[in-house]
Amino acid sequence: MSTIAIVGLGLIGGSLGLDFSRLGHRVLGIARRSATAEAALALGAVQQGGTDLALVRSANVVFLCTPLDQLGPTARALSPYLGEESVVTDVGSVKTAIVAELESLCPSFVGGHPMAGKAEAGLAVAQTDLFRHRPYVLTPTPQTQPWALDQLTALVEPLGAEIYRCSPQAHDRAVAWISHLPVMVSASLIQACGQEPDPAIGDLARALASSGFRDTSRVGGGVPELGTLMARYNRSALLAALAEYQQQLGQLTAHIEAADWSSLYQYLEQAQAARGAYLREKLPPEC
Amino acid sequence: MSTIAIVGLGLIGGSLGLDFSRLGHRVLGIARRSATAEAALALGAVQQGGTDLALVRSANVVFLCTPLDQLGPTARALSPYLGEESVVTDVGSVKTAIVAELESLCPSFVGGHPMAGKAEAGLAVAQTDLFRHRPYVLTPTPQTQPWALDQLTALVEPLGAEIYRCSPQAHDRAVAWISHLPVMVSASLIQACGQEPDPAIGDLARALASSGFRDTSRVGGGVPELGTLMARYNRSALLAALAEYQQQLGQLTAHIEAADWSSLYQYLEQAQAARGAYLREKLPPEC
Repeated sequence: MSTIAIVGLGLIGGSLGLDFSRLGHRVLGIARRSATAEAALALGAVQQGGTDLALVRSANVVFLCTPLDQLGPTARALSPYLGEESVVTDVGSVKTAIVAELESLCPSFVGGHPMAGKAEAGLAVAQTDLFRHRPYVLTPTPQTQPWALDQLTALVEPLGAEIYRCSPQAHDRAVAWISHLPVMVSASLIQACGQEPDPAIGDLARALASSGFRDTSRVGGGVPELGTLMARYNRSALLAALAEYQQQLGQLTAHIEAADWSSLYQYLEQAQAARGAYLREKLPPEC
Repeated sequence: MSTIAIVGLGLIGGSLGLDFSRLGHRVLGIARRSATAEAALALGAVQQGGTDLALVRSANVVFLCTPLDQLGPTARALSPYLGEESVVTDVGSVKTAIVAELESLCPSFVGGHPMAGKAEAGLAVAQTDLFRHRPYVLTPTPQTQPWALDQLTALVEPLGAEIYRCSPQAHDRAVAWISHLPVMVSASLIQACGQEPDPAIGDLARALASSGFRDTSRVGGGVPELGTLMARYNRSALLAALAEYQQQLGQLTAHIEAADWSSLYQYLEQAQAARGAYLREKLPPEC
C-alpha cells in the first residue's frame, strides 16, 4: 500500500481519494481552502488533510488535480518537498504543454488524463468508481522513468479504468477531435441560433427545441472556464481540427447550395456509418 | 367521434392511430404495402386497413403521414376522393413548400407538424402517448378555412400535445435553427474527425470518444434520408442558418487564433447562458 497525496480536491481529486482510500492506501489531501480539506476528511476521501503543500513530503505518489492553469504553479511550489523517488502525476485534459513543464520540475513525472467528467464540478459530486470502464491515458515521454510509469500503472489499474499509453502529442491531437472540437462546434450552434433577427421566430425556436438541440448543444453550454483552458493549452491541435471542420461544413453547404441531393445524401450516409466506430465498446490498446 | 384516415403507417401515422383509436375514433389506415396495413390492424392502431386510397372517402379528417417527398404525389392521388368538407392535414417536418402544394390540391387543408421523433422509424416503434407534452405545430395560411383549423385543433388537443400556431414560413425558420442546423453541424463534426491523417491517432480518437462526442454527433449520425429531405424542402432557411453559423464559428476561431482568451471566455459564457432558454418547460403560445 502507498501513501498518496492528492493536491486539489474537486470532482477528480475527490473521486480518486475515495477509490484509493477504499483500496487501502493512505491518502493525504491538500486543498486551497481548509474547509475543502475538512469536507474531504468527513467524506472519507482522505485520511489527513490541510492546506500545507509540505504534506506531500511523506507521499510515494502525488496526484496534481488542480485546474490546468494551476498545474505549473502548483508543481513549482511543491518541488522543494519532492524526492527523486516521489512519483508525480497530473490529471490535466491537455498534455503536451503541461507534461513539458511538469517533467522539468518533478524528477519522476508521468502525465495522466483520467477521462471521466460530470456535468457538475467540485468535491460535492465526487464519487467512488468514477473511473471504472472509462479511459485513463498515461503519456510517457523519452524522459519518463520506466519504473515510475510502472508504479503509476499498477496504482491506477485497480480503479477499473481502461489504461491507454501514448505520447502527449498523440493524446492532444486525439482529444482535439473528440473532446475539444465538439465544445467549439456546439457553442457556435447556440450562438448562431441566438442571432435570429425576428424575436417572435427566436421565441418559437426556443419553444420548439427538443432532444436534438439539447444533445447537440450540451457540451457547448458547459462551464466557460473549461472550454477556454482547453483552447489555451491545446491551441494548435484545436485550430487544425477547426480548419478541417470548416472545410467539411463548407463541403456540406456547397451540396445544399447546389441542390445536389445525391451528394448530400452520400455525405450524411458516410457520417452515419462513421459514427458507430466512436461508440463501440472500448478495448485498451497500446498506441 | 370522427372517422379518421391515416395515409402512411410509420412511427407517426401508427402512433396517431393508436391514440385516436383509444380515444374512440374510427381509424382507417392506408399503407403502400398490405402487410403494413395488416400489422396496424393487429396492433389496434386502425380499425380498417388496406392499400386503396379510395378508403379516405368515408373519412371526416385525413392525416397524410408519408415521407416529405411523397406528400405531394399522395395528395394528388387522393384528391378525387375528397369532398369540400374533408379536412386534410399532414405531419411533414417542413411546411412552406408542402403547405403551398397541398392547399392547392385539398380544399380544406391545414398544415401540421407533431414534433415527436425517435431514433428508429416505422410502425414497429409506434406507441401510445408519443405526442404528450411535445409540440404540435399547426400552420394556417390566409387560405385556411377557420372551421377546418378549429376542427383539427379539437381533434389533436386530446393527444396531450402542446399546440402552437404560426405561419409555415415562421415554422420553417424556427426549425431550421433548432432542428435542421444541428443535423448539419453534427454530421460535419463526424466527417471532420474522420480526416485525421495519422491512422493511430484516428484509432485513439475513436477509442477515447465518450459522452461529449456521442451527444454532439447523435443527430448528425441519423438516417441520411431525413437530413436530405430537411435540406431539400427547407433549403433557403437552412442556408441562412448555415451562413450565420459559419460566421459564429469564424468569430470563435478568430479568438483562438489571436489567443484572446478573455473574448473566448465571454463567447462561451454567452453560449452557456443562452442555452437555458431552449431547455425551459414549454408553454404553448400563439405566434
